Amino acid sequence: MAESARRARGGGGAARRAARKAVSFETARYIERNIPNFEVLTEEALEIIEQNADAVLEEIGVNFPDNPEALALWREAGADVQGERVRIPRGLARKLCSTAPSTITQVARNRDRDVVIGGRNLVLAPVYGPPFVRDAAGGRRYATMADFEKFVKLGYMSKWLHHSGGTVCEPTDIPVNKRHLDMLHAHMTLSDKPFMGSVTEPSRAQDSVDMCGILFGKDFVQENTVMTSLININSPMTFDDVMMGALKVYAENNQACIISPFIVGGAMAPVSVAGTLTQVLAETLAGIAYSQLVRPGAPVIMGAFVTSIDMNSGAPTFGTPEAAHITYGAGQLARRLNLPYRSAGSFTGSKLPDAQAAYETSNSLNMGLLSGVNFMLHACGWLEGGLVSSFEKFVMDADQLGTLHHLARGVEIDVNAQAMDAIREVGPGGHYLGCAHTQSNFRDAFWKSDLLDYKPFETWSDEGARDTQSLATARVEKMLADYQQPALDPAIREALDAFVATRKAAEPDSFS
Amino acid sequence: MAESARRARGGGGAARRAARKAVSFETARYIERNIPNFEVLTEEALEIIEQNADAVLEEIGVNFPDNPEALALWREAGADVQGERVRIPRGLARKLCSTAPSTITQVARNRDRDVVIGGRNLVLAPVYGPPFVRDAAGGRRYATMADFEKFVKLGYMSKWLHHSGGTVCEPTDIPVNKRHLDMLHAHMTLSDKPFMGSVTEPSRAQDSVDMCGILFGKDFVQENTVMTSLININSPMTFDDVMMGALKVYAENNQACIISPFIVGGAMAPVSVAGTLTQVLAETLAGIAYSQLVRPGAPVIMGAFVTSIDMNSGAPTFGTPEAAHITYGAGQLARRLNLPYRSAGSFTGSKLPDAQAAYETSNSLNMGLLSGVNFMLHACGWLEGGLVSSFEKFVMDADQLGTLHHLARGVEIDVNAQAMDAIREVGPGGHYLGCAHTQSNFRDAFWKSDLLDYKPFETWSDEGARDTQSLATARVEKMLADYQQPALDPAIREALDAFVATRKAAEPDSFS
Repeated sequence: MAESARRARGGGGAARRAARKAVSFETARYIERNIPNFEVLTEEALEIIEQNADAVLEEIGVNFPDNPEALALWREAGADVQGERVRIPRGLARKLCSTAPSTITQVARNRDRDVVIGGRNLVLAPVYGPPFVRDAAGGRRYATMADFEKFVKLGYMSKWLHHSGGTVCEPTDIPVNKRHLDMLHAHMTLSDKPFMGSVTEPSRAQDSVDMCGILFGKDFVQENTVMTSLININSPMTFDDVMMGALKVYAENNQACIISPFIVGGAMAPVSVAGTLTQVLAETLAGIAYSQLVRPGAPVIMGAFVTSIDMNSGAPTFGTPEAAHITYGAGQLARRLNLPYRSAGSFTGSKLPDAQAAYETSNSLNMGLLSGVNFMLHACGWLEGGLVSSFEKFVMDADQLGTLHHLARGVEIDVNAQAMDAIREVGPGGHYLGCAHTQSNFRDAFWKSDLLDYKPFETWSDEGARDTQSLATARVEKMLADYQQPALDPAIREALDAFVATRKAAEPDSFS
Repeated sequence: MAESARRARGGGGAARRAARKAVSFETARYIERNIPNFEVLTEEALEIIEQNADAVLEEIGVNFPDNPEALALWREAGADVQGERVRIPRGLARKLCSTAPSTITQVARNRDRDVVIGGRNLVLAPVYGPPFVRDAAGGRRYATMADFEKFVKLGYMSKWLHHSGGTVCEPTDIPVNKRHLDMLHAHMTLSDKPFMGSVTEPSRAQDSVDMCGILFGKDFVQENTVMTSLININSPMTFDDVMMGALKVYAENNQACIISPFIVGGAMAPVSVAGTLTQVLAETLAGIAYSQLVRPGAPVIMGAFVTSIDMNSGAPTFGTPEAAHITYGAGQLARRLNLPYRSAGSFTGSKLPDAQAAYETSNSLNMGLLSGVNFMLHACGWLEGGLVSSFEKFVMDADQLGTLHHLARGVEIDVNAQAMDAIREVGPGGHYLGCAHTQSNFRDAFWKSDLLDYKPFETWSDEGARDTQSLATARVEKMLADYQQPALDPAIREALDAFVATRKAAEPDSFS
């Protein structure tokens, strides 16, 4: 943090000056855990999985199709390359991974909102990728840029959300080859929280870097991580050339990537937890090793998007105990690699922000906190297996993220917390509501929802007997009405506008 | 278990013969954890809390009002008794607690459904105590005996529920002084799972023991625990003479009691976690010590019903992080006393079985599993801060209890679980759906909901776009339609009928 702040005196000056003028809403600092991690794997199990992952890399190998440059790097590093198949000698991938940093400071244009990803920290970012949106008034529909902007505004206003995310929904009304420009522009101008870059083409990753150059200063970007982007692995064990191309752009420019299998267990990985963890480890070792071949020291996060399947229908299932086992186990594996870890989120298969959605989401959020996740993408707003970004669920989940902050605080044990004076003052049969200790501690003692209903039945009934979704609809409206754009240096804003206009004019629209 | 089975050759013969004839629905065995407990308190914090609890007992003491018999027992044991105040010298309460057994086998009339409470086990029992019920069709209304019977039937049919519970709702259409007879009769005849006894008067506890004498055989009851009943402490630090009278009846008859503070933190205990834990420990030490004064070796469970408060409205709040801290901490304290531990449940303040209800419930259920709870009362069906038993939420929560069973299994690491053959067979770019390992393992690999929706959007939409509550309404109806009463020896049934009739005729109805 201190080092980043010093560097900011260089290229980040304009951003910092703008930040000082911004109308700002309260955002909690990223979570610094004061509780232990929960661990389900024994030392013996961890060693077996690590040995098996090495065997997978050495005997079976991984594919880097349509990517002669990557194959050349691998060959040079000592791998056995046959066609697109890369077999990595035992221990090599792990050795290459050792140059990756164990924590990453991602700088935001409002420096109070920088996040440190790694260690005992947890950074929360919103839903990523859905082509549809849903709200109570409009139902389920294709997402548009107007929806995208609303989600960025809601994220900016959400106290417990540290990160603005990336593709909070797919703006399907904007050409595929141009929407990344509008999305980045929205994150940069409608919010001052950290954000993600585009990965759908290497050229779009380069656009992301260039736009950050305008926002933060070109040199500043080379010396600081200002984006964290999502590089998915095509499980099992295939590294798509487009994704690898985007990874290369980011690694070369010192920008962070999550390198993450995307696994529905039983389909893209074995149906067993230990088998899936073996594959997750083999894949992330290969992907992270590759990032270090591109640029030793490139900032990367070990990812694990893993869930289970309903074997009857083939549908993915979320918030399940097997997903929890994998998430806990992958956390242990990441810590043994000394790498930041991404997993968990507001996952659900439900079509509505109903009880199913909340059960599954709570299961996953709690597991994410306890498994030591450092970067939680999809921490709010995910619905219908990731096909839908839900406005109501976004604010519902974002409210629940407050519970993770308070859980992570752990238990204080100083004299004030011991409260012996209060117990003496009140005594048997008394009550604590009015006692001195309660009066001086109650404000910060308990997490309090900004959304959920705690009213007596009669009051609740008189006010319309609203369920959680209805309360959330009202909260979405209120937050959007209260939204105020954070200030930004007009020169930077103009330069961003001009960059987007120029790049859009440079090629014809494409919708595929 | 072996010892109980041997003893059953005596008085339990009739029950066993009947059980063999019963039409029976599948019930999972109680949970035997193969995962660690989650611990939030350091050794230092635990010692401070234990020392403070001893200080509370010695310096402040606890009240046993209107109970000269209890005061005499305490005086005899070496306590300083002044009026109704009992001050317990440092270490005495803990020493008295050491005669309580560390595990309790509660026998069911279907011996396959015996539960072992303690150790690494978790036994799940339904909601207890609400005066109201709710379902989608009928809304919120006072509970009746017909409702009660439906809940007992649903509990009997619920695969993941090990226990029939007690007052699953208050049958308000039956006189207060007689409803315990009908409730016990329902548990004994409509289900074959273990159940709880009455605590609202010592005479009603005696009726419970006498009815168990009919069901199991009189001698059998004296030698086996066949009931677990709920003894609440009037926090702070007051032991109600009615509850203590019921405890005495049960302890003298070898029947188990949960001895449990009922605390809304900030009102009945200090607003801090460490302070609340100190009071919880002092109260349970005093209550359990008293049970051992009545009968050394009496089976007891250390309880902690503790939640937080909304300091603005004074309403209790559920599924909160502070409740989690207390539940985790109390589990650590219980294990250091080597006593079975009761806490957590399907807690929520919501008025409806909606997303709020599910968030709060999931938070509490997950915490209950990880905190080492041995007996979870209220594991399904609780709504509106415990004022309402919800039919829909009962089956929704009961379904989620399956996730706890699967989570508790931990992660297998044998050769089959390692799945290296599958990874070799499938290779990069393949898929696992058809591979041999998947085919031979998928049936038991993943927990599967019997309720939640995993269907594609279009199918779900065509089928009426139902939310979780609607799915649950249908499941309640189906389970009640499928219900078949477990067989019971007609002579026992007649004797139970006659006992209830005789006891009802012996005194006039009272509704207060």
